Amino acid sequence: MAQKWRTKISFNTKEETYIRGYPLTQMIGKLSFSEGIYLLLKGELPTEKEKKMFDAIFVSVIDHGVAPPSVVALRNVISGGNSLHVGVAAGVLTFGDYHGGALEDAMRFLQEYGKDEEDVEAVATRLAEKVVKEKWKISGFGHKYYKDFDPRTKKLMNLAKELGLFGKHCRLALALEEEIYKIKGKKLVLNVDGAIAAITSDMGFDYRLGKGFFIIGRIPGLVAHAFEELTQEPPFRRLDEEEIEYQGHPPRNLE
Amino acid sequence: MAQKWRTKISFNTKEETYIRGYPLTQMIGKLSFSEGIYLLLKGELPTEKEKKMFDAIFVSVIDHGVAPPSVVALRNVISGGNSLHVGVAAGVLTFGDYHGGALEDAMRFLQEYGKDEEDVEAVATRLAEKVVKEKWKISGFGHKYYKDFDPRTKKLMNLAKELGLFGKHCRLALALEEEIYKIKGKKLVLNVDGAIAAITSDMGFDYRLGKGFFIIGRIPGLVAHAFEELTQEPPFRRLDEEEIEYQGHPPRNLE
Amino acid sequence: MAQKWRTKISFNTKEETYIRGYPLTQMIGKLSFSEGIYLLLKGELPTEKEKKMFDAIFVSVIDHGVAPPSVVALRNVISGGNSLHVGVAAGVLTFGDYHGGALEDAMRFLQEYGKDEEDVEAVATRLAEKVVKEKWKISGFGHKYYKDFDPRTKKLMNLAKELGLFGKHCRLALALEEEIYKIKGKKLVLNVDGAIAAITSDMGFDYRLGKGFFIIGRIPGLVAHAFEELTQEPPFRRLDEEEIEYQGHPPRNLE
Amino acid sequence: MAQKWRTKISFNTKEETYIRGYPLTQMIGKLSFSEGIYLLLKGELPTEKEKKMFDAIFVSVIDHGVAPPSVVALRNVISGGNSLHVGVAAGVLTFGDYHGGALEDAMRFLQEYGKDEEDVEAVATRLAEKVVKEKWKISGFGHKYYKDFDPRTKKLMNLAKELGLFGKHCRLALALEEEIYKIKGKKLVLNVDGAIAAITSDMGFDYRLGKGFFIIGRIPGLVAHAFEELTQEPPFRRLDEEEIEYQGHPPRNLE
Repeated sequence: MAQKWRTKISFNTKEETYIRGYPLTQMIGKLSFSEGIYLLLKGELPTEKEKKMFDAIFVSVIDHGVAPPSVVALRNVISGGNSLHVGVAAGVLTFGDYHGGALEDAMRFLQEYGKDEEDVEAVATRLAEKVVKEKWKISGFGHKYYKDFDPRTKKLMNLAKELGLFGKHCRLALALEEEIYKIKGKKLVLNVDGAIAAITSDMGFDYRLGKGFFIIGRIPGLVAHAFEELTQEPPFRRLDEEEIEYQGHPPRNLE
Repeated sequence: MAQKWRTKISFNTKEETYIRGYPLTQMIGKLSFSEGIYLLLKGELPTEKEKKMFDAIFVSVIDHGVAPPSVVALRNVISGGNSLHVGVAAGVLTFGDYHGGALEDAMRFLQEYGKDEEDVEAVATRLAEKVVKEKWKISGFGHKYYKDFDPRTKKLMNLAKELGLFGKHCRLALALEEEIYKIKGKKLVLNVDGAIAAITSDMGFDYRLGKGFFIIGRIPGLVAHAFEELTQEPPFRRLDEEEIEYQGHPPRNLE
Repeated sequence: MAQKWRTKISFNTKEETYIRGYPLTQMIGKLSFSEGIYLLLKGELPTEKEKKMFDAIFVSVIDHGVAPPSVVALRNVISGGNSLHVGVAAGVLTFGDYHGGALEDAMRFLQEYGKDEEDVEAVATRLAEKVVKEKWKISGFGHKYYKDFDPRTKKLMNLAKELGLFGKHCRLALALEEEIYKIKGKKLVLNVDGAIAAITSDMGFDYRLGKGFFIIGRIPGLVAHAFEELTQEPPFRRLDEEEIEYQGHPPRNLE
Repeated sequence: MAQKWRTKISFNTKEETYIRGYPLTQMIGKLSFSEGIYLLLKGELPTEKEKKMFDAIFVSVIDHGVAPPSVVALRNVISGGNSLHVGVAAGVLTFGDYHGGALEDAMRFLQEYGKDEEDVEAVATRLAEKVVKEKWKISGFGHKYYKDFDPRTKKLMNLAKELGLFGKHCRLALALEEEIYKIKGKKLVLNVDGAIAAITSDMGFDYRLGKGFFIIGRIPGLVAHAFEELTQEPPFRRLDEEEIEYQGHPPRNLE
């Protein structure tokens, strides 16, 4: 009978752990962290160029300050009297559809419209019309402050070109930004989520792994915030009464 | 009045995110992931040697197969019909006192006994007697299968020496292994948790960050297992009746 | 400016907590737990009949043995060396689309097709055809073992009738079961999720609260299992090698 | 060989689920939710009096407004784009040592000092001296605003007396409050956590289940807040820049 627990990722003997076939003890000291991550996720070792691209991608999302809901949730959980790992887990939990989800959505979108043999520019024109005229919502485009270009996108895209990893999905993403601009006369910038989505798609990753790139890249930020909360702040954060607006039923008696 | 939200880690302007003072857009493409992690956790950039040490440490814990409780918990959570990030969070939750906790405990122990000016060998002798005669439990020592040495420890310690990061805490850890052997005539090997604990202590990290090194290193493994479960396995794992032994009250009627 | 924290549920003064307007100290000793839950969720006190219905609903899902993925996840998390509340949280996390989700889906379905003035039987006939001929998937119907009727459904539906809480949504659910049987000649039984969905819909609850009924009812089971694991089992569960089938790349060397 | 999965709580056959030996279908409509919870946790059915006590205990902690860290964490997690159950799980995660932990600590304390045959008053006098003179920290005593008595404690203790559930642990708790007052001339009031701890101890529950009473009682509050956030609030809460004080390294350039 088939075992209930199957995996292609790794296995242990008494003496060794094998990651995608490679002995872990051979990996230590030889592979960089990004190379190890690539091996785990892809099943094969990266080239020097793929490693560099991975480093850039993870660094681009490594932390975003204390303001996002993941950090606020994490710090509140720690302040309830919990260990570092419980706070970090609460931070990861916060990565729902609106917090890292754009990356995954953009990958799905680019992989869906980038799979045909069709000319990328033709697809981009067609999609741009949908976006502008039918008001399609697309993930990975648009930014609150960057109206001309997202500097992180620029960095990542230039690097992808330099490293020879700039393929069909990257071209589609940038062509779409361009086509929307032509029709609308206003830019809807390709943001950092969109850029990562395009590049990881060109690197051959399944869109269902999209959120994983964000999680791996952002974990160090969560750990840093959890450690700071644990060591620097008094326990039990709570909202002040002045921060709260009660809009419910006024006081009444039971009976 | 002081703000309720204080941080030394990072901040955002409309145009940029600053990590420990450095603009994120400058970091992309210039820093490796491990360098970014070091900067976040330590507040300053690593040397080339510290970067290499970090790479080796994270790779040494990157995955350990499907067997550990974190992966079983994660896969059950995914199988209940959850997204990738929820499964990964459940994996992180599992990292309690018995799962990654040895690293933190060993750091605390080594930092406590390694802080004095006293001769490391004298401390090791004294501690070894406690361990052998008073049966002190110490974290970071002992292994189910490795009875002579832990090959991961050997790799990491050799690298630490090569990179000039082998200091007082590493010496204490190895001296203690040696002294216990002398008294007991049997090895209690310094395992990979103990090795990482000693090296990160010598790199100047607070023991309360200990679990963080394990979390950061193991996250790629959790992501890989979550993705595999999500894409390869049918939903709703459940135990078969044959796996369960009911030891409670026999059936009875209400009234 | 509007506060960022708004609520209609409850508020505190220095001396008292008010739940939907009622002083908490007045509630203690006067309201049963189910009455308190109803007040919190609905905003008003239940009648004696609504209270009884709530009691029956929560009891009907209170525990389901050690086999479901929520309990397996919970026990693995505890076994990693975590506190009771962390294990319970992992259990709650497991309640995704396939674990309690049927209740919410069935509520949405019944509320969508039960909102029209149209005759319930006509709607049921129309839906039954979709289910049988177009193979629509509907939540809250079907059971692995119960092929004639689900005894829990029978209990809950009889009670709803007795208490005068059997309305349009209950009629639609049972009519649909009946119509499918007529067309197909085989029963697709209304299961316990479907029954709770129909009754809570008739009690006026929003389908988006559906999972909440399951969570509240099942929490005592999770707490009981977490306590048992914590006090009766050795730490660090792990799969035996015999339970695992490795299907990945065979061992190979790095260089 | 012994099974890896053992339980005394419940088991399933194809036709029925048995909770502590009782068929679940018999329980539906016959037991109140509190009776079902008692059965699950204790292994036997409660008397009418024990049922009433349970109702009062759970109601006494059912919700505490939007201010506590559990609700703030929960709402931030929901706002990241997550489902109801994920938010509720984050709320449960927050219940660490400082958030519900006092109940468990007070149970342990009362069970430790209440187990001897010794006269309760003598123990109380001895403990009061430790508290006042040696500044022992005790959980379950003290309140930010209630300086004379905690009205919830009064309600619960009066009910316990009325129901004949006021035993050795309740006497110890109140005697200790009294003795501290005598020595110090100032009250350290027995708060609601302390009252629940004393009563559940007299009802025969293990202190390691302490947090469980809090979790079960507070879950409806978490569900209500999660539902409100999900249906009433826009996604992605984030701190405003004015709420944050950056205290780290000023901006600098990489190279």
